Amino acid sequence: MIKVVGIGSGQVKNLTLEAIEAIKTAEVIVGYRTYIEWIQPLIDQNSKAQKIITTGMTGEVKRCQAALEASRKGENVVVISSGDSGIYGMAGLIYELSDSEDEIRVIPGVTSSSIAAATLGAPLMHDFVSISLSDLMTTYDLIMKRVRLAAEGDFVICLYNPRSKGRPHHLEDALKIIKDIQGDDLVVGRVTDAGREEEEVAYSTLKEFDVQDVNMRTMVIIGNQNTHMHHGKMVTPRGYRL
Amino acid sequence: MIKVVGIGSGQVKNLTLEAIEAIKTAEVIVGYRTYIEWIQPLIDQNSKAQKIITTGMTGEVKRCQAALEASRKGENVVVISSGDSGIYGMAGLIYELSDSEDEIRVIPGVTSSSIAAATLGAPLMHDFVSISLSDLMTTYDLIMKRVRLAAEGDFVICLYNPRSKGRPHHLEDALKIIKDIQGDDLVVGRVTDAGREEEEVAYSTLKEFDVQDVNMRTMVIIGNQNTHMHHGKMVTPRGYRL
Ligand SMILES: C[S@@+](CC[C@H](N)C(=O)[O-])C[C@H]1O[C@@H](n2cnc3c(N)ncnc32)[C@H](O)[C@@H]1O
Ligand SMILES: C[S@@+](CC[C@H](N)C(=O)[O-])C[C@H]1O[C@@H](n2cnc3c(N)ncnc32)[C@H](O)[C@@H]1O
Repeated sequence: MIKVVGIGSGQVKNLTLEAIEAIKTAEVIVGYRTYIEWIQPLIDQNSKAQKIITTGMTGEVKRCQAALEASRKGENVVVISSGDSGIYGMAGLIYELSDSEDEIRVIPGVTSSSIAAATLGAPLMHDFVSISLSDLMTTYDLIMKRVRLAAEGDFVICLYNPRSKGRPHHLEDALKIIKDIQGDDLVVGRVTDAGREEEEVAYSTLKEFDVQDVNMRTMVIIGNQNTHMHHGKMVTPRGYRL
Repeated sequence: MIKVVGIGSGQVKNLTLEAIEAIKTAEVIVGYRTYIEWIQPLIDQNSKAQKIITTGMTGEVKRCQAALEASRKGENVVVISSGDSGIYGMAGLIYELSDSEDEIRVIPGVTSSSIAAATLGAPLMHDFVSISLSDLMTTYDLIMKRVRLAAEGDFVICLYNPRSKGRPHHLEDALKIIKDIQGDDLVVGRVTDAGREEEEVAYSTLKEFDVQDVNMRTMVIIGNQNTHMHHGKMVTPRGYRL
């Protein structure tokens, strides 16, 4: 049995009880090195975990194959993702590599847009899109088309993987498309390491937003036309008449 | 201090540790009656909760005002939302009604699209949109415009509030728009009461999808052109070359 477990921010308080139980009782734990470090306090409470399988960030296929092999030997395996394992996480790859006999369960977690939103205020209260700016697995054109359609629909926009290695211009291009359609007064929030000790948060307008402040651990949330700052927080009204 | 707490499916295992702690230590707990029932096991472990404030589903503004009043008297207040409190939940309304002195924290939770996706397989592995089909707080035209743009962008689409009371035709209209753009072979998953004992899950194509099976406790997830069934699960590939 493989459980694909989302660990939210990685802080223990942000994990669900089910995720904590899965980690505490696993025989094999598979994950990116940094994620394993975050949940070490839980692994320390696990008397069965004999085997930790880690590889670098790009070893995803290898890690998933190792997880499947271990589970086919009857081991109780946990595969770790940050945030929710079903959102740009490991769940899809595990299923893709699986055959009909494999037993797989996805344990959902709090995705980073929810964690970042909670820090920023309440920016996701109305219809929103999640877009990854990494083009390792999509074309540049499709990414930018989606950004344009999202702006045309006045959706709140969550940008995952906002600055891909070697592609620093994606974020600039995306913001330019949004500006051209929506104007440059939109409120933008950015949270780096949301929900972690080193969390860093900032608010600005699209006009003032500086892409230099963004890295691979940042969530960028761009408001819709109704999003505004309210006592220092970013709020998208749901439309209640008060 | 007010904590706006997302309780995921409502099953204790689906709450984060932080949400559980908040509920166990609150002096006042505010929420829709059904949600309070779900978390009763936690409230029973709370020696301080003297006051539970519940009203029906439509008493949202009243509940939030009661929460703010209690917190202004110095009480430690928790406001409950299902899923994530920041996604079509109570966080926005609390902020909207707050003034500069109120102390507010949003405790993020697992939103129902993540819970439903975990049951279905891994449908959210690529860019997706969340749209509410309730037009209580939006216009019908804006909802349908967003559905159209989402389909044009080949986004995976999560429909919250898929059947609003008295507006049963919204879902049909939305699905028709998607079919016209995307064809009717798209995979659709629906999960009612995701993550709860009474969970009900079904897969179909857009062609065969029956809106009669959907109610206000259902999450409908419509795949993109790459989404397919894989050993009985709904999977959207992230684009890895295997
Ligand atoms: C490959 S995706 C993984 C997403 C993850 N499965 C989730 O549900 O949040 C990595 C991207 O998620 C975002 N991210 C993940 N954790 C974050 C956090 N704690 N704070 C801000 N952004 C985060 C960043 O945009 C990062 O580039
Ligand atoms: C007012 S919204 C609240 C959303 C919630 N704050 C969240 O983050 O999931 C209510 C809608 O969420 C969806 N929903 C909430 N909980 C659900 C569950 N356990 N299973 C399926 N859908 C759910 C349904 O579409 C429902 O009509």
